[in-house]
Amino acid sequence: MKQGIGYSAVGDTFDDFLLIKEATKGVASNGKAFLTLILRDATGEMEAKLWDATKEDESLFIAEQIIRVTGEVNQFRGKSQLKIMSLRPAQPTDGVQISDFVEKAPVEKAYLSEKLTEAIFEMQNPTIQRLVRAFIKKYQEGLLTYPAASKNHHEYASGLAHHIVSMLHVGRELHKLYPELNKDLLYAGIILHDLGKLKELSGVVTTSYTLEGKLLGHIPIMVEEIGLMARELQIEGEEVLILQHLVLSHHGRAEWGSPTPPLVREAELLHLIDLIDAKMNMLNRALDKVKPGEFTERLFAMDNRAFYKPLFEEN
Amino acid sequence: MKQGIGYSAVGDTFDDFLLIKEATKGVASNGKAFLTLILRDATGEMEAKLWDATKEDESLFIAEQIIRVTGEVNQFRGKSQLKIMSLRPAQPTDGVQISDFVEKAPVEKAYLSEKLTEAIFEMQNPTIQRLVRAFIKKYQEGLLTYPAASKNHHEYASGLAHHIVSMLHVGRELHKLYPELNKDLLYAGIILHDLGKLKELSGVVTTSYTLEGKLLGHIPIMVEEIGLMARELQIEGEEVLILQHLVLSHHGRAEWGSPTPPLVREAELLHLIDLIDAKMNMLNRALDKVKPGEFTERLFAMDNRAFYKPLFEEN
Amino acid sequence: MKQGIGYSAVGDTFDDFLLIKEATKGVASNGKAFLTLILRDATGEMEAKLWDATKEDESLFIAEQIIRVTGEVNQFRGKSQLKIMSLRPAQPTDGVQISDFVEKAPVEKAYLSEKLTEAIFEMQNPTIQRLVRAFIKKYQEGLLTYPAASKNHHEYASGLAHHIVSMLHVGRELHKLYPELNKDLLYAGIILHDLGKLKELSGVVTTSYTLEGKLLGHIPIMVEEIGLMARELQIEGEEVLILQHLVLSHHGRAEWGSPTPPLVREAELLHLIDLIDAKMNMLNRALDKVKPGEFTERLFAMDNRAFYKPLFEEN
Amino acid sequence: MKQGIGYSAVGDTFDDFLLIKEATKGVASNGKAFLTLILRDATGEMEAKLWDATKEDESLFIAEQIIRVTGEVNQFRGKSQLKIMSLRPAQPTDGVQISDFVEKAPVEKAYLSEKLTEAIFEMQNPTIQRLVRAFIKKYQEGLLTYPAASKNHHEYASGLAHHIVSMLHVGRELHKLYPELNKDLLYAGIILHDLGKLKELSGVVTTSYTLEGKLLGHIPIMVEEIGLMARELQIEGEEVLILQHLVLSHHGRAEWGSPTPPLVREAELLHLIDLIDAKMNMLNRALDKVKPGEFTERLFAMDNRAFYKPLFEEN
Amino acid sequence: MKQGIGYSAVGDTFDDFLLIKEATKGVASNGKAFLTLILRDATGEMEAKLWDATKEDESLFIAEQIIRVTGEVNQFRGKSQLKIMSLRPAQPTDGVQISDFVEKAPVEKAYLSEKLTEAIFEMQNPTIQRLVRAFIKKYQEGLLTYPAASKNHHEYASGLAHHIVSMLHVGRELHKLYPELNKDLLYAGIILHDLGKLKELSGVVTTSYTLEGKLLGHIPIMVEEIGLMARELQIEGEEVLILQHLVLSHHGRAEWGSPTPPLVREAELLHLIDLIDAKMNMLNRALDKVKPGEFTERLFAMDNRAFYKPLFEEN
Amino acid sequence: MKQGIGYSAVGDTFDDFLLIKEATKGVASNGKAFLTLILRDATGEMEAKLWDATKEDESLFIAEQIIRVTGEVNQFRGKSQLKIMSLRPAQPTDGVQISDFVEKAPVEKAYLSEKLTEAIFEMQNPTIQRLVRAFIKKYQEGLLTYPAASKNHHEYASGLAHHIVSMLHVGRELHKLYPELNKDLLYAGIILHDLGKLKELSGVVTTSYTLEGKLLGHIPIMVEEIGLMARELQIEGEEVLILQHLVLSHHGRAEWGSPTPPLVREAELLHLIDLIDAKMNMLNRALDKVKPGEFTERLFAMDNRAFYKPLFEEN
Repeated sequence: MKQGIGYSAVGDTFDDFLLIKEATKGVASNGKAFLTLILRDATGEMEAKLWDATKEDESLFIAEQIIRVTGEVNQFRGKSQLKIMSLRPAQPTDGVQISDFVEKAPVEKAYLSEKLTEAIFEMQNPTIQRLVRAFIKKYQEGLLTYPAASKNHHEYASGLAHHIVSMLHVGRELHKLYPELNKDLLYAGIILHDLGKLKELSGVVTTSYTLEGKLLGHIPIMVEEIGLMARELQIEGEEVLILQHLVLSHHGRAEWGSPTPPLVREAELLHLIDLIDAKMNMLNRALDKVKPGEFTERLFAMDNRAFYKPLFEEN
Repeated sequence: MKQGIGYSAVGDTFDDFLLIKEATKGVASNGKAFLTLILRDATGEMEAKLWDATKEDESLFIAEQIIRVTGEVNQFRGKSQLKIMSLRPAQPTDGVQISDFVEKAPVEKAYLSEKLTEAIFEMQNPTIQRLVRAFIKKYQEGLLTYPAASKNHHEYASGLAHHIVSMLHVGRELHKLYPELNKDLLYAGIILHDLGKLKELSGVVTTSYTLEGKLLGHIPIMVEEIGLMARELQIEGEEVLILQHLVLSHHGRAEWGSPTPPLVREAELLHLIDLIDAKMNMLNRALDKVKPGEFTERLFAMDNRAFYKPLFEEN
Repeated sequence: MKQGIGYSAVGDTFDDFLLIKEATKGVASNGKAFLTLILRDATGEMEAKLWDATKEDESLFIAEQIIRVTGEVNQFRGKSQLKIMSLRPAQPTDGVQISDFVEKAPVEKAYLSEKLTEAIFEMQNPTIQRLVRAFIKKYQEGLLTYPAASKNHHEYASGLAHHIVSMLHVGRELHKLYPELNKDLLYAGIILHDLGKLKELSGVVTTSYTLEGKLLGHIPIMVEEIGLMARELQIEGEEVLILQHLVLSHHGRAEWGSPTPPLVREAELLHLIDLIDAKMNMLNRALDKVKPGEFTERLFAMDNRAFYKPLFEEN
Repeated sequence: MKQGIGYSAVGDTFDDFLLIKEATKGVASNGKAFLTLILRDATGEMEAKLWDATKEDESLFIAEQIIRVTGEVNQFRGKSQLKIMSLRPAQPTDGVQISDFVEKAPVEKAYLSEKLTEAIFEMQNPTIQRLVRAFIKKYQEGLLTYPAASKNHHEYASGLAHHIVSMLHVGRELHKLYPELNKDLLYAGIILHDLGKLKELSGVVTTSYTLEGKLLGHIPIMVEEIGLMARELQIEGEEVLILQHLVLSHHGRAEWGSPTPPLVREAELLHLIDLIDAKMNMLNRALDKVKPGEFTERLFAMDNRAFYKPLFEEN
Repeated sequence: MKQGIGYSAVGDTFDDFLLIKEATKGVASNGKAFLTLILRDATGEMEAKLWDATKEDESLFIAEQIIRVTGEVNQFRGKSQLKIMSLRPAQPTDGVQISDFVEKAPVEKAYLSEKLTEAIFEMQNPTIQRLVRAFIKKYQEGLLTYPAASKNHHEYASGLAHHIVSMLHVGRELHKLYPELNKDLLYAGIILHDLGKLKELSGVVTTSYTLEGKLLGHIPIMVEEIGLMARELQIEGEEVLILQHLVLSHHGRAEWGSPTPPLVREAELLHLIDLIDAKMNMLNRALDKVKPGEFTERLFAMDNRAFYKPLFEEN
Repeated sequence: MKQGIGYSAVGDTFDDFLLIKEATKGVASNGKAFLTLILRDATGEMEAKLWDATKEDESLFIAEQIIRVTGEVNQFRGKSQLKIMSLRPAQPTDGVQISDFVEKAPVEKAYLSEKLTEAIFEMQNPTIQRLVRAFIKKYQEGLLTYPAASKNHHEYASGLAHHIVSMLHVGRELHKLYPELNKDLLYAGIILHDLGKLKELSGVVTTSYTLEGKLLGHIPIMVEEIGLMARELQIEGEEVLILQHLVLSHHGRAEWGSPTPPLVREAELLHLIDLIDAKMNMLNRALDKVKPGEFTERLFAMDNRAFYKPLFEEN
């Protein structure tokens, strides 16, 4: 049986450490204060209410604090809610730290780094290779730690690199099946397409949008970055323009954020590979939480569909 | 230099056999009759005008007749048009036959048949395997000769099997990369998804829609076929329902012809693999006809986009 | 003055039997359990809260239990809510049964059955008549008891047959006014169009969607059923195809669930008659609950409009 | 076999009188002038070319001139075209007149007038009755001669009254089946809904849009007319407002020309009855021109669909 | 520091008079009654809860009652809420009156009236001038007191006239820059375009939609009014039609409420000036409440966008 | 009476110099070659046919050649066409040059340059001023000669600067009326918003899209340019980001080419001012060609509307 708050069902008791992600004060109908806490560990998150909160509680139980909680999972308006029986702040002697409570990619950074290097090594066009290598170098730190998004898919530590490496695998196989594809372009497009998120998102632990992210978005940010990098490396030639086009068009349509649609073969395929990997990530994680014969919860980023796990599926 | 009408450019002369695909009589501004001919060989098709057509011409130059033509490629309203210098019906001694003028899949039927058998052999769920095998057997003839569509993608002899086998390759590799996928379901979905086209389309040479195709369409036709086959084989169980769902949902959205969207993981992926293979087929064939630095003609089924072939592409 | 929970207004007291449709446990801000009950009788339903619920309450007051309630109708977030004063489970000696609390069609099953028989009797095309008669026989039980939907219109016992018979009346009159219409086709389309709901919906009392309903939907289910029945009866001929088309197209547009739009005159009219009867059913029932000079509540299935009852209307 | 240009098929010869609806001069590729004529009789219209047109021809063959033509029906770009063999202007002694060449409603004006009177006679609300009667009186002449549109449906002399009377029949029967409907409102809505077309359209013979029709449209025109008439008759009360609402909302949705959607029961039904009668008119006339087993031409106002006439239909 | 409920932030204490805009009774989870009050002054409004409300409270604290409140601003579900410490009804001796609590245009009625007169004085076309003057006279009272809407923009006393006068300023300057514009038409369109709101909205203090407003809307109401006024003044000529068109088309598109789009130059510009003034009003008021470096709350009528105030803005 | 091909009506004779914009060879139905010429002067353009073209004609009458033509304006498929009577290439002695045949802005370059300088001079924020000045300097040549588009609005020499200067006038006046606006931001946004067109469009005489224009578009191009320029000038601070946002969002919506909508007050207004000036330019030029009481031709970029010029307009 899988452990952790993400796997706790209504009726379960809970007794473990959790990280406070958000804490908001409210006033109950009896006039007393209460705290609404969003608690998480590496498997998921759940809301909890701390009733009759004292002033001391308010100052102790704040965001990014780790706590020890015992409680019971109840249902509230169709969602799970943790009924807190007791709680206390974690002590240094408890030996727990924030990074334990952050969801992580299922593979190691070293592996991700190696796969990126491998892909660059396979490239044959020196201009493309040089440009991509420069970006890997410039952003190595963030690239290996950032999530790919603040929610929906690959929204965990190292999620961005995990998404890229997974897409590189798909790209490699599709290139074998459709050898007309230019592998260098495809690999470069895959590696660069979402790097703008390193500027669009605020960080790993409590990921939100930066001002630049809100006012420009990761696509225009990255198109500009490629232009700046090319100038810095004194690279000229159509490769730069085509790579900018791949990044610009990878959402596929104007209404999805790409003012120009894909007009190069590899741009069209980049868009489809991005869809495949994002959707498989969402579906696999949602289906992992239900039993055969059940539906998942509604997935907002999949047009709000609930997916069915057939009875004949092995769990 | 590639030969054939599909590769002829404005200004080229032409002297070879062609098949009349359509012939329509018109009356010119001088009051004389003329014939508008759509002529084709295995590489493509072109319009031609036969001016001052006699009654005999009208009876000789009709659809499905092979002719010997000499002429010159002109431009008319932005499209190529063959200006006929001379023409005559083919003779038995010319040693040409209709099948020479029909575009064919770039692989052999035997290969396609073998790949289908291989996929079925890999299946482990006996219910799914039995159902798919029964369809392969029932439709073997049509399955290996039909196009996948009357236009747009894989619109050539054996195009349907070519599309299926190509998708099976993609499916096999994606299953390796995403092992959570149920390979049997995915393979079965790929093999069955478009079999309704055997009833929707009229045949191989001059492909049009049947009445059943117009009033029902290949998706509802195939959903029903699966139900009938299951009853015939006395198969029961959720597999039948899930396979019907895969076929029903493979266009992805109601407005694209799937009244129910994909609600099973493999159904979602089936839709994406179908997109990839159809688009790669369209793109590769359109880009094959242009030089680096040029744009293709507008591709209707790709939202009317013209695609660019980068200068650094090898042709 | 009309009696029943559906006609109770804010401020009214209530003292009668009700059926528990749903019961959900919650925990109040004082830490005590409470039950949220959806209570109904044949005129409608209302939410109620049972505060400070004991373990015994939790086991007594469950779905499908009939209870005797006294209470007062309050307003909560703009909706009526029953404030419970006292309640007890119904006793055998109370002489009440579940079927008393289910909304029913305003006409008898015998009448509905007779009208269906009459329509079949009027048909002249033997193929159509035979096929429709076979369906009536196969599904007679469900056809006369099922609702036409789980909500919105004709969502009550015998609602499906009520909807069909009402549409037959409209069809008969429109056939007189537009004699070009094929009455057999129109009648058959009306009788068959929604029969797939017998497999799509779970039953009469607590109607939900079956797995087959979710993954296929009543339209593809019924298209397949017609094919199977035709094969069983060894019926061939265009009639079968046209009837499948009528069912397939009766939602009018792809985005409304018909992958093929109506392409036969009677299919177009079937769609319009379905709209008329569904809308009249919704409007009449909503307007019945308001006084002249008032607006109804917003009707979700009518694009969320609230309808006005003119002052000069007799109530 | 039906007679007239509307029933002439490719290959037919033609020898009869026709009315010139439009005449446009062009210059052929040999530098000579030609006339493009749109010719019509009461059954339909066809394009024709008069080659090598002299100055005299240009002055003789103008719009609203009747001519005697012999010719042959050819096909040009997929449409029928009359190849003129000979033509001459009609003489007084030919005994033909423009009204012979205008399509007319299949019923007499007297009948239409009587039916309108009947409907008003059935009304019970004196305010509604008085207002409707005043409009019938004010517009009697136009109401009985105007088409209901310049194309698509009921686009023939007396088409407007024919449409109204046909809708009144449907309304009467639906009122019997749904007695909750207010018959007076429904009848008044039917009679008034399109009267604004008397100002929107230019007339009976060559119907086009007036300036008022283009800048306001028949719906706002008629809403204003009802207001003016009510003031003139010194009528007050909610009836006037509700009738204005029925006219305003009868296109059903903002994007179809009704800035307010139907918010009164009879307004919703008026919209649906309008759809039924317009569609039956279009479908019956299009299907009348094809044989069983054939499809009609594409009908622009029916979402460009081509409709099928089943083989088992009597013609 | 700006005073008033509209400028109170979470954590602030509050002690002043407020007007009750709405009062609704509820029952808390402890079974006791409470009142939900919407309280306002001239700067904005806030929700408040009065717990354990007695029967006397219910009768005292009703809509349009002024009260003296002390309390503290809390946050509830992301919105500010006033926690009431004490409250009492205002006394005559408090010297407060309802009009003190209604938001007002930032300019005086006398100024607005003068500016309207000025604009009419500038007109040269006597027909247009006469018609506009008649409306100003007819509606002078309402025109100077009504809001321009019940929410979103200029939703305060004299908001309608403020909107008109502000648009006249813009119109005057644009006429100088684009002298081809007909100033008379533009001015008349600006003054008349929203006058239908005097019948669409119920009044100044608690603004809601009238029945006429709901069933017709201000645009058709005003088109009719222009027709009636022209008849009354015995004015004829194209000016009347063009002015009706300007009013009818000023929402720009059918789906935004204009069944006819602008087809006259000044109509197109009227639509754009209306957008500019409405948006500037919304933006300026929302940005006035945030500091440089912050985003406003989401603005529903601006496609739900939150706007950013740059750091380098002076506050 | 205005002179030039743009003002020539059907039936007019023509005898003057024209520039060949395009020349395409075709083959007529008599088998002879002809040339389709697009001829233009500074007032507009018209198609012409040169029948029976010799090989010499083909080499003489090519794009960018000036010719002397006599002919007559005919109508062909609803459009004007020049019937050529005689033509000859222009001689050096004719004293005509290409620039005479290109449409130009109605104001001088010196004036435009001065107005740009004036605007920069008014700016107070040194960062914004410095950045804008650098762009004016970098692109001065192109900025004063380029059109604002290849068609639709300001599609003439110096059209870009004309559009900018006209928008600056509007911006200045709106800033006076809405003093909360930041004038520096507004001016900078106006000057920079379309500068990307200098890279998107190919030039002044025969304007088409560059490869960069097709694959990126002027908006992403300019966002990048601002980033590069800021780096070059070593400018940092929020001003750069806000200016990039203004450029990025100035089309207003994702589906119109702005992946991020306006989120800053001046960005919203920039979008509206751009609309006003583009639309006034299109409307004024189209209305200039028709008489009072007439409609313009349909304007594609104005949703295909034809605009009416009221009878009471002075021409």
